[in-house]
Amino acid sequence: MDIEKEMQKIAKVIDKHLMSYLEEGKPEKLMKAIRHYPEAGGKRLRPVLAYVVAQAIRKQGKRTIPFGCALEIIHNFTLIHDDVIDQDPVRRGRPAVHVLFDVPTAIIAGDAMFARGFEVISETRTSPVNLNRLLKLTSRTVWLIAEGQQMDFDFESAKKVRPDEYLEMVEKKTAVLFSCAAEGGATVAQGTASQIRNMREYGRLLGIAFQIWDDVLGITGDEKTLGKPVGSDIRNGKRTLIIVHALKQLEKRGNKRRGEALLSALGNENATQDQIAHAIEALRELGSVDYATGIALDYAEKAKSCLRCLKKSREKELLGSLVDFAIGRAT
Amino acid sequence: MDIEKEMQKIAKVIDKHLMSYLEEGKPEKLMKAIRHYPEAGGKRLRPVLAYVVAQAIRKQGKRTIPFGCALEIIHNFTLIHDDVIDQDPVRRGRPAVHVLFDVPTAIIAGDAMFARGFEVISETRTSPVNLNRLLKLTSRTVWLIAEGQQMDFDFESAKKVRPDEYLEMVEKKTAVLFSCAAEGGATVAQGTASQIRNMREYGRLLGIAFQIWDDVLGITGDEKTLGKPVGSDIRNGKRTLIIVHALKQLEKRGNKRRGEALLSALGNENATQDQIAHAIEALRELGSVDYATGIALDYAEKAKSCLRCLKKSREKELLGSLVDFAIGRAT
Repeated sequence: MDIEKEMQKIAKVIDKHLMSYLEEGKPEKLMKAIRHYPEAGGKRLRPVLAYVVAQAIRKQGKRTIPFGCALEIIHNFTLIHDDVIDQDPVRRGRPAVHVLFDVPTAIIAGDAMFARGFEVISETRTSPVNLNRLLKLTSRTVWLIAEGQQMDFDFESAKKVRPDEYLEMVEKKTAVLFSCAAEGGATVAQGTASQIRNMREYGRLLGIAFQIWDDVLGITGDEKTLGKPVGSDIRNGKRTLIIVHALKQLEKRGNKRRGEALLSALGNENATQDQIAHAIEALRELGSVDYATGIALDYAEKAKSCLRCLKKSREKELLGSLVDFAIGRAT
Repeated sequence: MDIEKEMQKIAKVIDKHLMSYLEEGKPEKLMKAIRHYPEAGGKRLRPVLAYVVAQAIRKQGKRTIPFGCALEIIHNFTLIHDDVIDQDPVRRGRPAVHVLFDVPTAIIAGDAMFARGFEVISETRTSPVNLNRLLKLTSRTVWLIAEGQQMDFDFESAKKVRPDEYLEMVEKKTAVLFSCAAEGGATVAQGTASQIRNMREYGRLLGIAFQIWDDVLGITGDEKTLGKPVGSDIRNGKRTLIIVHALKQLEKRGNKRRGEALLSALGNENATQDQIAHAIEALRELGSVDYATGIALDYAEKAKSCLRCLKKSREKELLGSLVDFAIGRAT
């Protein structure tokens, strides 16, 4: 199965609706800010996930489209606010919303998208009781995302971050929205209680694996894949699982040279490409890249085991491949 | 009827629930930021409005409490983001959230409150169909608030703002939430289509009157009532209806002296108390304070006429008094 092709096919269906939800409104400056990230494309992972889950359970993919689009809109709202918070000037190779416009417009655009997301959810063709479930699920999810964003922001000034704290942050900041997509898809398709529970867990594990892998790519990827300069996570001093692990390793003896290489670049906005290259080498030598990769694989395996609740189908297979895709192992 | 006392009685009922909705969550810094404005007190106008409307229609005030609290939470979220956008350091006589904590925490706290607001709505004891209406109504309302915030922000750099543009901004930024409260209250109480329509309009007109009056108070009030220094609207160059009117009057002959008095203080952060006093005098002489007061009265009268759809009751009377209260005419 060509997973990328399959996903693109579904993403294309999503896209037809997505942008139509972002047309109505004014002033034009606000609307441009709102459309800036969504129109840059992207894999639409969250709506695709909701779609495929509903398809696997009861061939109800189409019904999830408003809900899925709402999650994509909400996801993009969190990206806009995230970029303001991190003062990140670039997203997907284009200027961030607060750079292209200004910080107030970025804050307002995010708020507006959040509101539109909930409005779009209300258009889902499902029973009122189910709709209430989606509302509760999604609002709870965005609350947790905010908790995760706060943790992430507080980590910047924290002396030490433990791996379990990092994983809690990632679960909240990233995984809960995957979980919400999968659970919502199962809800719209009227899955059994067990299916809904398993899909929630599948999305959560998939999301954590995805984020850890994203952190790995931030170290091992090239500028084209990343959409931002290599080493920018290091320059920003971002506390990824790799960095958290490496900093712990540095407490051990015999790592002085590696420590110097890493610490001279970590959080140093002016680090040269050479310093970055040495820091990355140190991360590899400390076993931190392998460590994070191993944990991502572990979550991925567990995610796959949640699929047992589904009967055999092309879509079930796709959900399995999606896991491999999320950790860069798609064949 | 002692309207303030009556409102306080209802606000007290609201408050018992309101803060309980803002307890669960972490990290503690985020939770403190979230509670900072709501715990400073306030009249809880929006939940009180929803409560009294539902009470007037079918004695269903209590049922509106989660919905009303959600609106109060959402209102406070918009205040937090507003203060970041306006770089306003003070709110209700206390440091603004982004000053007491930091801008990222203020952005995240606002987002989290928005999410909690929708979660709380889902707890309203009403039919699933009604709940869906509340969801749609509220999400649509917050979208419009964002449009209003963007207009308000854009006005700062606009050469000229027309009165109709100002009124559109105020309707979106302030009045729609009053309208949402009144319509939502009528919805929860299962009012007739005509009652729901009239309550929506009542809230809208009341909200516009309230905001214009707030602008008048910003010129004529003292520091204690305002919770901020006298003349800060002038120093910030805020385009209120009074200022919009005055700037238009200045285009006429014979207003040179007044023009100089006003323009030397308007948007001048370092204006002295003396300059502010002269600017206020000019605003009065130009008839701008009377002009705005007259328009507020006009909206107030129209708001009252929407109450005809309600049968005679103590609560109907209260809704009438609320209008007087909103424009400082409570007896």
